[in-house]
Amino acid sequence: MSNVRAAVLSEYQQPLTIREYPEPASLAPGEVLVTVELAGICGTDVHLWKGELPVPLPVILGHETVGRIERLGTGTVEDWRGSPLTEGDRICWASSISCGACFYCRVKNQPTRCTTRKAYGISYCADEAPHLRGGYAEKILLRAGTAIFRIPENVSTDAVIGAGCALTTAVHGLERAAVALGDVVVIQGSGPVGLAALAMAIQSGAILAIVIGGPSHRLEMAKRFGAQTVFNTEDYADRQFLRKCVLAETGGYGADVVIECVGHPSVVPEGLEYCRDGGKYIVLGQYANAGDVALNPHTITRKQLQVVGSWGFEPRHVYRALTILEQTDWKHQFARQITHRFPLERADEALQTTREWQSGKTAIVPNP
Amino acid sequence: MSNVRAAVLSEYQQPLTIREYPEPASLAPGEVLVTVELAGICGTDVHLWKGELPVPLPVILGHETVGRIERLGTGTVEDWRGSPLTEGDRICWASSISCGACFYCRVKNQPTRCTTRKAYGISYCADEAPHLRGGYAEKILLRAGTAIFRIPENVSTDAVIGAGCALTTAVHGLERAAVALGDVVVIQGSGPVGLAALAMAIQSGAILAIVIGGPSHRLEMAKRFGAQTVFNTEDYADRQFLRKCVLAETGGYGADVVIECVGHPSVVPEGLEYCRDGGKYIVLGQYANAGDVALNPHTITRKQLQVVGSWGFEPRHVYRALTILEQTDWKHQFARQITHRFPLERADEALQTTREWQSGKTAIVPNP
Amino acid sequence: MSNVRAAVLSEYQQPLTIREYPEPASLAPGEVLVTVELAGICGTDVHLWKGELPVPLPVILGHETVGRIERLGTGTVEDWRGSPLTEGDRICWASSISCGACFYCRVKNQPTRCTTRKAYGISYCADEAPHLRGGYAEKILLRAGTAIFRIPENVSTDAVIGAGCALTTAVHGLERAAVALGDVVVIQGSGPVGLAALAMAIQSGAILAIVIGGPSHRLEMAKRFGAQTVFNTEDYADRQFLRKCVLAETGGYGADVVIECVGHPSVVPEGLEYCRDGGKYIVLGQYANAGDVALNPHTITRKQLQVVGSWGFEPRHVYRALTILEQTDWKHQFARQITHRFPLERADEALQTTREWQSGKTAIVPNP
Amino acid sequence: MSNVRAAVLSEYQQPLTIREYPEPASLAPGEVLVTVELAGICGTDVHLWKGELPVPLPVILGHETVGRIERLGTGTVEDWRGSPLTEGDRICWASSISCGACFYCRVKNQPTRCTTRKAYGISYCADEAPHLRGGYAEKILLRAGTAIFRIPENVSTDAVIGAGCALTTAVHGLERAAVALGDVVVIQGSGPVGLAALAMAIQSGAILAIVIGGPSHRLEMAKRFGAQTVFNTEDYADRQFLRKCVLAETGGYGADVVIECVGHPSVVPEGLEYCRDGGKYIVLGQYANAGDVALNPHTITRKQLQVVGSWGFEPRHVYRALTILEQTDWKHQFARQITHRFPLERADEALQTTREWQSGKTAIVPNP
Repeated sequence: MSNVRAAVLSEYQQPLTIREYPEPASLAPGEVLVTVELAGICGTDVHLWKGELPVPLPVILGHETVGRIERLGTGTVEDWRGSPLTEGDRICWASSISCGACFYCRVKNQPTRCTTRKAYGISYCADEAPHLRGGYAEKILLRAGTAIFRIPENVSTDAVIGAGCALTTAVHGLERAAVALGDVVVIQGSGPVGLAALAMAIQSGAILAIVIGGPSHRLEMAKRFGAQTVFNTEDYADRQFLRKCVLAETGGYGADVVIECVGHPSVVPEGLEYCRDGGKYIVLGQYANAGDVALNPHTITRKQLQVVGSWGFEPRHVYRALTILEQTDWKHQFARQITHRFPLERADEALQTTREWQSGKTAIVPNP
Repeated sequence: MSNVRAAVLSEYQQPLTIREYPEPASLAPGEVLVTVELAGICGTDVHLWKGELPVPLPVILGHETVGRIERLGTGTVEDWRGSPLTEGDRICWASSISCGACFYCRVKNQPTRCTTRKAYGISYCADEAPHLRGGYAEKILLRAGTAIFRIPENVSTDAVIGAGCALTTAVHGLERAAVALGDVVVIQGSGPVGLAALAMAIQSGAILAIVIGGPSHRLEMAKRFGAQTVFNTEDYADRQFLRKCVLAETGGYGADVVIECVGHPSVVPEGLEYCRDGGKYIVLGQYANAGDVALNPHTITRKQLQVVGSWGFEPRHVYRALTILEQTDWKHQFARQITHRFPLERADEALQTTREWQSGKTAIVPNP
Repeated sequence: MSNVRAAVLSEYQQPLTIREYPEPASLAPGEVLVTVELAGICGTDVHLWKGELPVPLPVILGHETVGRIERLGTGTVEDWRGSPLTEGDRICWASSISCGACFYCRVKNQPTRCTTRKAYGISYCADEAPHLRGGYAEKILLRAGTAIFRIPENVSTDAVIGAGCALTTAVHGLERAAVALGDVVVIQGSGPVGLAALAMAIQSGAILAIVIGGPSHRLEMAKRFGAQTVFNTEDYADRQFLRKCVLAETGGYGADVVIECVGHPSVVPEGLEYCRDGGKYIVLGQYANAGDVALNPHTITRKQLQVVGSWGFEPRHVYRALTILEQTDWKHQFARQITHRFPLERADEALQTTREWQSGKTAIVPNP
Repeated sequence: MSNVRAAVLSEYQQPLTIREYPEPASLAPGEVLVTVELAGICGTDVHLWKGELPVPLPVILGHETVGRIERLGTGTVEDWRGSPLTEGDRICWASSISCGACFYCRVKNQPTRCTTRKAYGISYCADEAPHLRGGYAEKILLRAGTAIFRIPENVSTDAVIGAGCALTTAVHGLERAAVALGDVVVIQGSGPVGLAALAMAIQSGAILAIVIGGPSHRLEMAKRFGAQTVFNTEDYADRQFLRKCVLAETGGYGADVVIECVGHPSVVPEGLEYCRDGGKYIVLGQYANAGDVALNPHTITRKQLQVVGSWGFEPRHVYRALTILEQTDWKHQFARQITHRFPLERADEALQTTREWQSGKTAIVPNP
């Protein structure tokens, strides 16, 4: 067997390097070896690169991945929905595996908080066999028990990667705190999470969607997604003035639902101000630990807000996201998000485009 | 007509003084003149005294009041539940009046956020006729449209004042974010709001209730209310150690619901730590604006928390609170909370006992 | 003053007749005299004509009405959202007025179940002054306290009448039991309520909507509204076969949400079968009392269903419906629903087209 | 190995007979052989005896069981909460096992509707090895994957059996449709499910609980559980009069929540009448299929009710029920429910006492 090449983060804030790992000779029951077609670069990868979440180094990044099944372990391996998988199937999968047995899985029905949960491209040390646990690679080896989804014919690989983990994150977030029919929504952030939240807020019945973000090429995309109004934060050095302008667009009272998709703590107190009294604030973006912010909790009491966090997603949300892509035109919007593609050996450059907000969505093509 | 004496806050952080106001000669339709039996001192009064909420000075404090109807305006004045009121009826009332016509009253069903809402004992300037709009007084004049409740025979005046606005605040808070059957609950604070939240959490089905507060006489009361475990913050200079001890009592994961009833911003980040992942944090205590606190919003995302604020209460909640007092034994617990009583001329001393955490609940007896 | 002509139901199941009533000479404060532009015919009017709800005869039918303000009573009359109304304004209004003071209005927040609620076109006897309380008339006199809405410029009168009370009914129903992002929905019925429920289910995030109804011209409209699959009940004499076909379209398990919009009790047991286990069944159509049906309650337990009723709507829902029309393209779909128009003197003929399912939506033009 | 005796239902509506089965020689990994201490007789067993649910005959009845671990399969078998089990542990278990992989387990989070779910004492044919799958037996053999719970020291075996599956059913039902703080509740039925629902409604914050049932010895028990008012249906031949009396006790409007715990379809239309408008009707009792009832769906629309079914329970609910028993005094109330005990050979007689409403709760003592 030949070796498999992968892009590896060995040290925080240092360039990714290409390493080679042995291709697994034989697969255990339930395991699946996948040839990667397209690996998405997620904003979280930038946070990981910065060192804002504890991960075992070196790590093969990449938790948004589409590939084709190359080999299957013995016995039947099933699609999460119940049909047998075969070689050549085009698939994606839930990036995390929950144990099903811990306090959070069993007692509290919160499997995203499983105490032993591990995520491809994040939680596996590349030094440990079988190494191939991240998407920035020619091949990835899926563990038995991974929730694997055969991608519907009419959903392109670009659509799945363009939607990325942002879409499933948004689907989960809006399950925890729903946008209701006729709501006014403000989205903080115009990155992939912001656009996915925007799409799902509109799909959930929002009749007015306002996006605050940047740079301008991303706000253009937000408009194509359906935002009626966009604010480029670069144009508002005076944040109090921005606040006034945003509130004016909501009729003066603030939005029914504000969705935080930025990831900087500083936007959270601002976001609470964008909510109408009695409204909801959904904190989707603070996946990484970027530290404290000064916040006045009196605001939460006085405005009687609901502030709702949501962490990752369950396989159910991947299922729902794929169904939404399959049945609606959002797939085309998401596919068009991909603006940059790089071969594996230029993975570090790919990460950089995301780091510097140059791209809509950047993807790695490991097997061109 | 003789004059009516009242205790007035004329300047922040200065002693209350006794002033006299003319008793209204004739009442407009719907107005009710009430002889005050007992006026409770609420922790909010201390915040008002400190100047932590904008109020018009001078003001007659006192928004927790029981009295007897002395005179009624022309026409029928009805109890909020629909029966006519008569002279001599022992009553209490919702401290605020909402307009029923603004954006929050009409469109968003959030009458506690009515844009023109005014509260007895808080929002009325005592210099303006008819002056008598606070409970620290011999008499109070209720506006037409006040939600007035005849107090059930089996509910003592002490029970109503012992419960105070804390009980209705807790009833509202737990309506916005419910304690479920079998939940583990942590209460931050053992003042009147803490004890009312404790009582209502137990009444809502909590099977384990932990109170963090002080001083010790209040924690004794918390135990009598049904708390299984209490922590005296005076004993825990090391807050990380306190956190460990509290979590240990919840089985290591934290509580299903944590209820903030302290009013200092500093307890909010601590409170988030007491929540289990996927749990609820109810912010009841931050009624006054006591400034910012450093808070890490990553905690809200990672632990996928619900943080829920609740402001004051509606007449519905007074109705529900009175019904709970009428039908359960909590009335005896609340009545026993009153440890200090003062005549009107010693109102400032009364406020001081609350300010210095000496009392369970302090009350003023204006017409002994 | 000249007389005002109106179409009146004097006896159940007998033709409507044209009567004349005196135009009110002077208006009381808050009253509004409206020249009717367009009066929609609702399926409920057919039920009223049949005698399936107790109403005072004779009655001027018509509770879906758009008109222009001809005269206003003294003082300011305000749009429900707070701005003053003036002569010439094009308006619609909530068909019912709730008292704000009864058990359901106050204690239980269920104003649609107000114990003294009265609806224009339904609850007012035309023999009693001021007579003009229904929409099938040249003019209608609105009571003080009516929730009046100035219609946004970009929303045509046809859109408002095409949407009719069906849209607000659907908005209320989906507030009580929401369609969630990604849900599969089955709609029973393709009349105006069915189409409005279909539109709002899609707007709420349904990704698959199946309509069961007829006749075929209405199912064509359902397809234009966005239904992916329609079943014409005329083609399925064998209801068990229909059931199999519907379930097959939902993947075999049934829909997440089934919305009943037919109004015949017989469809309710069928509808429960269209729900997946753990799903929701929203009963919107049983506004009239059409008697019993044999139903097995074991189905509700075994499938652990939620069966949710919803009665009429509040002014809040009219507000939300108008906002949805204003902000989305549904206004055009609803406007196109109107297929038949009749002058006032042919009101009975108009009612007949609805009775016999000939029309999309029928409207009366009283002042052509 | 000696044989194991069990009471078997071989034919519907025929006496149970005692049969012997071979004790399993060796256990597979994860299996647990349990010596039965106490086997509760559930009302469902009577329905099964009557043939109202399809079950494979012959069947060893008994799905409410407490026993001690006699032998464990190889490897570690864990308590559902995570600690290893050992011989001699006193345990109970969730009566059903869900697959974790089907549409309902995975996609819809409804494991009680698992498509391959099997319940001890209900779904296993006694003719098939290993036979011992019901509680009316000296021993029961638990499958690998059973959710087993070590019973807390302070919870007696009588408390667990006295609570029975009724308690977990009530815990699940009130999770699906909660009783809120201060609610008025009507319970239809005073059997074990009725009493468990009563207890959990009170624990959830009901301040007025009314029970309709019989015979009188059970209504006495309902009063001891905390019901303020009871109605013996034997005293009300005129059901319209009963309805008036029940409504009078609720203040004329009906209860916030009505819980059906009878199991006869005829009580369902009655129960809807006991609900206030906008209230909830929880259908817990219709576990068996006892056929149709004539019901007017207009009632559901007009009163805008929520009718909620709930089927069985998940391991989570057993956990919650055990915690409630452990932490509250309800354990003593439930323990006192057991009024009749029989040795295994008199199992048929035991079933008869339940069938004829003679007992509070009947239990079989297979190893006296």
